Amino acid sequence: MPVFLNASDTDFETAFVALLGAKREDSPDVDDVVAGIIADVRARGDAAVLELTAKFDRMELSADQLRFSEAEIDALVAQVPEAERAALELAAERIRAYHEKQMPEDAQWTDDHGAMLGWRWTPVSAAGLYVPGGLASYPSSVLMNAIPAKVAGVERLAIVVPTPDGVANPLVLLAARLAGVDEVYRIGGAQAVAALAYGTETIAPVDKITGPGNAFVAAAKRRVFGKVGIDMIAGPSEILVIADKQADPDWIALDMLSQAEHDESAQAILITDDADMAQSVVAAVERHLNVLERRAIAGASWRDFGAVIVVSDLAQAAELSNRVAPEHLELCVADPDVLAERITHAGAIFLGNWTPEAIGDYVGGPNHVLPTARSARFSSGLSVMDFVKRTTLAKMTPAALRAIGPAAETLAISESLEAHGLSVRARLNHLND
Amino acid sequence: MPVFLNASDTDFETAFVALLGAKREDSPDVDDVVAGIIADVRARGDAAVLELTAKFDRMELSADQLRFSEAEIDALVAQVPEAERAALELAAERIRAYHEKQMPEDAQWTDDHGAMLGWRWTPVSAAGLYVPGGLASYPSSVLMNAIPAKVAGVERLAIVVPTPDGVANPLVLLAARLAGVDEVYRIGGAQAVAALAYGTETIAPVDKITGPGNAFVAAAKRRVFGKVGIDMIAGPSEILVIADKQADPDWIALDMLSQAEHDESAQAILITDDADMAQSVVAAVERHLNVLERRAIAGASWRDFGAVIVVSDLAQAAELSNRVAPEHLELCVADPDVLAERITHAGAIFLGNWTPEAIGDYVGGPNHVLPTARSARFSSGLSVMDFVKRTTLAKMTPAALRAIGPAAETLAISESLEAHGLSVRARLNHLND
Repeated sequence: MPVFLNASDTDFETAFVALLGAKREDSPDVDDVVAGIIADVRARGDAAVLELTAKFDRMELSADQLRFSEAEIDALVAQVPEAERAALELAAERIRAYHEKQMPEDAQWTDDHGAMLGWRWTPVSAAGLYVPGGLASYPSSVLMNAIPAKVAGVERLAIVVPTPDGVANPLVLLAARLAGVDEVYRIGGAQAVAALAYGTETIAPVDKITGPGNAFVAAAKRRVFGKVGIDMIAGPSEILVIADKQADPDWIALDMLSQAEHDESAQAILITDDADMAQSVVAAVERHLNVLERRAIAGASWRDFGAVIVVSDLAQAAELSNRVAPEHLELCVADPDVLAERITHAGAIFLGNWTPEAIGDYVGGPNHVLPTARSARFSSGLSVMDFVKRTTLAKMTPAALRAIGPAAETLAISESLEAHGLSVRARLNHLND
Repeated sequence: MPVFLNASDTDFETAFVALLGAKREDSPDVDDVVAGIIADVRARGDAAVLELTAKFDRMELSADQLRFSEAEIDALVAQVPEAERAALELAAERIRAYHEKQMPEDAQWTDDHGAMLGWRWTPVSAAGLYVPGGLASYPSSVLMNAIPAKVAGVERLAIVVPTPDGVANPLVLLAARLAGVDEVYRIGGAQAVAALAYGTETIAPVDKITGPGNAFVAAAKRRVFGKVGIDMIAGPSEILVIADKQADPDWIALDMLSQAEHDESAQAILITDDADMAQSVVAAVERHLNVLERRAIAGASWRDFGAVIVVSDLAQAAELSNRVAPEHLELCVADPDVLAERITHAGAIFLGNWTPEAIGDYVGGPNHVLPTARSARFSSGLSVMDFVKRTTLAKMTPAALRAIGPAAETLAISESLEAHGLSVRARLNHLND
C-alpha cells in the first residue's frame, strides 16, 4: 500500500523526511565492465565496436554497416502509419517552436571607463544522442534531445540506437529525420558511448553526449565526462499532484499512473487539502490497476513508492512540494496560477485540470527530459542551453587600463602572483612614459 | 624547452594532435579515503568534522567554534590595508555589475490554440563555496564564486575555508563580506564538502557546492554530486595568445607567465604569423624566468607544456585555437574584433594589446572560473546561470487539449504507455460528452 500521511499528525515531519530520503533505485555496479569496454573501443576502434555488437545485440556487421544508409532510413520511415507520422510531426513542430524561444542572446556594452565587456554564445560543434533500443525506445525522447541541439545550431548530430537482432523502430528513425539528425548508427551500450566520445575509424568523435540509457550507458557517460560534456544522469520518473476538492479523482489517478507505469521505481505523490479527494483518488488508482496493461509495473511503483498526503491548506501543499522538488508537478486546483507563484523547486509545472502530464511528454512543447530525484533544487531540464556555451569578452582601452589596472596589480601582489602584476604594470609603465 | 611547431611542416598535424592530447595532470587516486571521510561525516556529523579538523588542520575546536563569529570577521577584516580593501571593492563592484546583466528572463506566451507555455527561473535556495586555505587562498576567487550566487538570489550562501594552525587570510574574509556571504566555517578538505552536502548539527546542508580545491576536495565534490549540484572540476590553467607583428613580445611573455606561475601543470601557448615575434617572445620569457619569484613553478610549466606555433596567417591561427578551445584566449593583433569573429571555442577572449589576462582575473568583470582542459568545446565559465534553475510551464485549455491531445494519445499508444494515453482520453471524452 502507498504511504498515507496527514500533515497535522504529530509524527508527520519524521515520516515526511523518511519519504524524502527513500532510495528508489539501486544501480548495479557495472563500472569495471564499462571501463573495460571503453578501453577496448579506444584501443581497437571499429573492430571492438563490431565484436561487442555481435556479442550483445546478436548482429554480425561490417564497419560500413554501422551507419544506417539513407535508403535504409527511407524504407523504415515508409512503414510508419499516417496517424503516427502526423502526431510525430505535430510534436516536432511544437517542441521546435518552444525551444526556439530559448536561444540566449549575446551581449556587449561599454563601461564608464571605455572598456568593452560582454559575452557571445556559440553552439557545440558535434553532439551525440543515445537512444535506448527495445521497449524503452521512445521516439518522443529522440525529438526532445535532438531538436534543442539543432535549434542551438549543432552542426553535426549523431544518434546511436541499438537494434538487437536487427530490429529497428521505424518511429525512432522518423523522429530522427524530423529533428534533422545527421548520422544514425545501429549500436548501443557502453561501446556506443565510447565510440561517440573517442571516435573510431567510422564514427567521428563528438563534444557532447545526451540521452537516457541503462546502467551500462549511465556508467559509460560518467566515465567519458570531461573528455566530452554529458547531460544529467536521469533517475526514475516522478510526479507530484496537488489537488483541491474541485479536481477529478479519476483524471488524477490516471496522471499518477502515467508515471507509475514507466518503472517500478517511479513515484507518484498526491497532496490534497481534501481528505475525501485523497480517498477517491486511491480508489480510482486501485480500479485502474485491475485492468491496466502495465499493471504489474505500475502496481509495484504505487505499492512501494506511492504516497498520499492530506494537508490543511494549499500553501502547506506548496511548501511540502518545494521540499520534494518534483520532476513533474501538476496543479489540479481552482486557481493554479496563484498556487504556481508559491512553487520554487520543480522541473515542470502543469497548470490546471486540462493539462495532464502526458501532454508534456509528447506535444506540449517544453522538454520532457527533466531533473529527477529532487535535483530540481539545483538543476533544470534539457534545453537549448545544453548545446551552447558562453565565451566572455573583454577589451580594455589605455584609459580603461589606467583606471582599473592598478587595482588588478594590487590584488595580484596580495595573492603573490608576481607575473600577473607585472603584465599589468608593463602596460601601465608604457602609458606613463 | 617548450614545443616549437610550424604549421607548414609536413609532420605538423601529428605534432599538433600530440600537443592537444598531452595529459598535464595526474590526479592522485584519493577516492577511497574521501569515501571514508564522507561516510564518517554523514554518520557522526560535527564530531567527525571536529576530529578531522584537529587531524588535518591541527586545530582543536568545539562545535560552536566551527563558524566564524561576526566579531572575529570584524577583527580580521580590520587588518586589511586600505589599498587592498579599495582594490577588492573595485573588483567586487565590477564583477557584480557584469553578472547582474546575466540574469535570465522568464517567458510566458499563448500559442495559437490558447495554450499557455513558458518558463520561470528561480534561485538555488542554499549554496556552499569551497575556498582553499594556505597559498592558493585567493580572495578574487571568493568574489568570482560568491557574487554570481548572490546576484542570482541565493538566500543562504555558506563558505568553508580551512585555516591550518588557525591562520586565516583577512582578504578572504573581506571578500566574503563584500560579496554578502552569510556564513563562514573554518573547515576544509573532504570533510567540509561532506558537511555542506549532508549537513551536521551545526551546518545546515546546501543544494549546490562550487569552488576550487585539491584532489581530496575534487573527489569529494564528484562523490556528493547528485545529492547536491556542483560546478565543474577545474584542471590546471591555460592561456593561448594569438599575436601578429605589431604586438609587444615582452607583454605577451608576461601574460604567458601569468598562467605558467599558477601551477607546474599550467600551459601557455603562443600562435603567431610572425616567426620573429615567436623568437622575441621566447627570449622575453627566458629573461623573465631568471628573476621571477615563482620561476621554479613557471619554468617547469614553460619547459614541460609551453608551445610556440608559427602559422601562415591569422585565419589559420584561429582555426588551431578553436581546436585547442583554450580557457583564456588573448588576441594581441591589430584588429582583434575581426579575429574574434572566427573564434568558436574559448572560455574567455581578451581583445587587443591593452587587455592582459590578469585584468580578467581580478577587475575586468567577467568570471575567472572558466572551462579548462579543452572543455570550452562544450561548457561555459561560472555565471549567474549556475545558481538558478528553470521550471517549465504549460497550461492547456479545453480547446488546446482538443487540438493537440489526440496526437499525444496516438504517440502514447505507439510507445505502449496506456495510462499516458488514457489520462488524455479521459479529458477528451469529458469534452465530447
